[in-house]
Amino acid sequence: MTITGSALYAQSGGVTSVINASAYGFITKAMKCDFIENIYGGYHGITGVLNEELVDFQYESPAVIESLYHTPGAALGSCRRNLPDIQNGMALYERFFSICEAHNIRYFFYNGGNDSMQSLRKILQASEKLGYDLTCIGIPKTVDNDLVGTDNCPGFGSAAKYNMVSILEASMDLASMYRDSTKVFVMETMGRHAGWITASTSLAKRHEDDPPHLILLPEVPFEEDKFLAKVTEIISKIGYCVIAVSEGIRNLDGKFVKDAGINDVFGNTQLGGVGNTIQNLIQKNLKLRTHGSILDYCQRSARHLASRVDVEQAVSCGKHAVYIAREMTDKMVTIVRESNDPYSWSLKEISLSEVIGKEKSLPTNYYNPDNYEVTQDFAQYCKPLVEGEDYPLYFEGLPQYGHLTKHFVTKKLDACPKELLDK
Amino acid sequence: MTITGSALYAQSGGVTSVINASAYGFITKAMKCDFIENIYGGYHGITGVLNEELVDFQYESPAVIESLYHTPGAALGSCRRNLPDIQNGMALYERFFSICEAHNIRYFFYNGGNDSMQSLRKILQASEKLGYDLTCIGIPKTVDNDLVGTDNCPGFGSAAKYNMVSILEASMDLASMYRDSTKVFVMETMGRHAGWITASTSLAKRHEDDPPHLILLPEVPFEEDKFLAKVTEIISKIGYCVIAVSEGIRNLDGKFVKDAGINDVFGNTQLGGVGNTIQNLIQKNLKLRTHGSILDYCQRSARHLASRVDVEQAVSCGKHAVYIAREMTDKMVTIVRESNDPYSWSLKEISLSEVIGKEKSLPTNYYNPDNYEVTQDFAQYCKPLVEGEDYPLYFEGLPQYGHLTKHFVTKKLDACPKELLDK
Repeated sequence: MTITGSALYAQSGGVTSVINASAYGFITKAMKCDFIENIYGGYHGITGVLNEELVDFQYESPAVIESLYHTPGAALGSCRRNLPDIQNGMALYERFFSICEAHNIRYFFYNGGNDSMQSLRKILQASEKLGYDLTCIGIPKTVDNDLVGTDNCPGFGSAAKYNMVSILEASMDLASMYRDSTKVFVMETMGRHAGWITASTSLAKRHEDDPPHLILLPEVPFEEDKFLAKVTEIISKIGYCVIAVSEGIRNLDGKFVKDAGINDVFGNTQLGGVGNTIQNLIQKNLKLRTHGSILDYCQRSARHLASRVDVEQAVSCGKHAVYIAREMTDKMVTIVRESNDPYSWSLKEISLSEVIGKEKSLPTNYYNPDNYEVTQDFAQYCKPLVEGEDYPLYFEGLPQYGHLTKHFVTKKLDACPKELLDK
Repeated sequence: MTITGSALYAQSGGVTSVINASAYGFITKAMKCDFIENIYGGYHGITGVLNEELVDFQYESPAVIESLYHTPGAALGSCRRNLPDIQNGMALYERFFSICEAHNIRYFFYNGGNDSMQSLRKILQASEKLGYDLTCIGIPKTVDNDLVGTDNCPGFGSAAKYNMVSILEASMDLASMYRDSTKVFVMETMGRHAGWITASTSLAKRHEDDPPHLILLPEVPFEEDKFLAKVTEIISKIGYCVIAVSEGIRNLDGKFVKDAGINDVFGNTQLGGVGNTIQNLIQKNLKLRTHGSILDYCQRSARHLASRVDVEQAVSCGKHAVYIAREMTDKMVTIVRESNDPYSWSLKEISLSEVIGKEKSLPTNYYNPDNYEVTQDFAQYCKPLVEGEDYPLYFEGLPQYGHLTKHFVTKKLDACPKELLDK
């Protein structure tokens, strides 16, 4: 029998362009749902929940709810907080459930990536131990696309689209200038442990000599001499060279290239992003003029250039979470690829235990380590995910992004003990 | 009496999102013009002209010409080449005019910024000295917006729009994360000598505490202690701090902050962009976690987010150049602001001698040096220039940017002496 109670939704980890689209899907579906009473939002994820900072969505206007569809960032605020093991940290879970009890919360939806699913699973285990009936459903979200059990993650398609368009445009700039100026352009992308975003820049390439010419993935150990020889080869063939580099590439000994003490032109250890390291390596050894972009936060918040497919999937994942909560718990929503051409997809779910503690790297058939290239298999996988545009409305030149008014519920408990909030 | 002959158009200096829109305006107007016979394009600016590398536009299809309207970069290729003084470098000018003569070129249109207008003026002076009748018209182009004599420059509005949307989106990311993670975001912008682009990020701000909170302009000497105190003040008031910094900020002694030997957290001289320097300064002194973007080439090629007003002005400047060439020479096209509200503009022209050797910094009524802020006067100036969107068409998730087929005219002269091409 489906229990009736209130629902708590929270956002966690690094944000994406479309995590609020999932919030939009979740809220609009939950509002029509017979077993959900009030809908609350955790302010800055679990941190806000522990503080009893619960946004009450009944006070948000339909226009504000609607605006979440096209608003980047985390409208409720996010957090970076890994929960303690149940054995050592039960006090935290007791606090969490006292808040659930005070507000009759019986459904918890956590919108996040790997770490967030781990936290969600711990909460579920604690609920069983404490005998508190709480349905726990995960909604996937990560630009890194490294969650297992799902064909792709909401957030990735838009980050991929933004990066591939950015490298295409910057390459056209370089191609204009290289004849008597800059010859190399380096774009640093996110993805510390898996090269999905970096690989996605390859979709800007339509013909053999098109940029990007070299894709440096965290899955492939970085070898300085081999890399420099390849840059030289491309420069002599094409005249210029465009490189996409993951922030997480490592040397053969496993050290991050960024931290590996490669010296800059003045002999100092290079700081800044790995993009700077690569630029300095080329300037120092090949005496070539370089330029580089580090897009950083821009790539996970560029809602102005979101992928339509990504937005649709993000909304649907939020809705599906409500749908399955009637009968299931201990699940994360997953995206299933039904066919490639034409691309079609559906939603299913997976047990949290099958997701947590794992990271999905690029499969070996998706890249060619000898040539710093990705394969046709990867292109076939990635292309549908960047398909279509979904522009926000603009006013006076600026996208009209929304903001929750954030009406908090009246607190019923004492303040959270400080030691539970310390990390 | 208007002379009949062929026209040469070339692109020069750093490119913009809309320089090809000017090319589109120029070509479509020139094609209908009775005094212009063939239309040639210099391949990579003056460099290609000296090499007799002339693209013949009659072989470009209407679809390719049309695609220039929404294609970033320089379709003909650009160059960074300052021409020598006439006294010392007459051989170069003789070469230039032998090419004009061989192809009956009587009109030269140079699409560029400060340096390009200087080169254009030298070519005009050499033509007078050599008795070769050549009409010389400049078409303005620079993301830096630092040309005098024109209310604004094509290219700036789109760079401004891209930067302001980027800082808005990245700020929403930071606002999501700051509670227990990153507290400061630094965005480095172009504009080495004038703060127009950096100032434009302020348009993302709609309410008093909105980001960006601090705008570091090259017009205002950078004082480390004062700056750090301001960051601290903002963090304690708002919780997080968003900073836009021009690549060209200088210390009180006039040195670029980027080169000024500010040490990083390990005591090494910091390289990379000035954005890195600012991040390290904050990390070292305030012990705050920072993130930062260096958009670099992306900001002058982001045609996917061009300003509609900017595109329209770029096209019109290209057309107007043809229009005035019937009766004038020694001119650069200028944009005149007719009114602010509603914004209206027209085109005029200015003598090259009034433009060259000057740079337009931000007027002092456009910024407040004590608060790292820009003023309402600046907002009133800048707002109309970022107005409206003008999206390219997409195919398979990627903008459909165009490429010239580049059919070169048959060379009539010997190869260019190498010493003329050395810089």
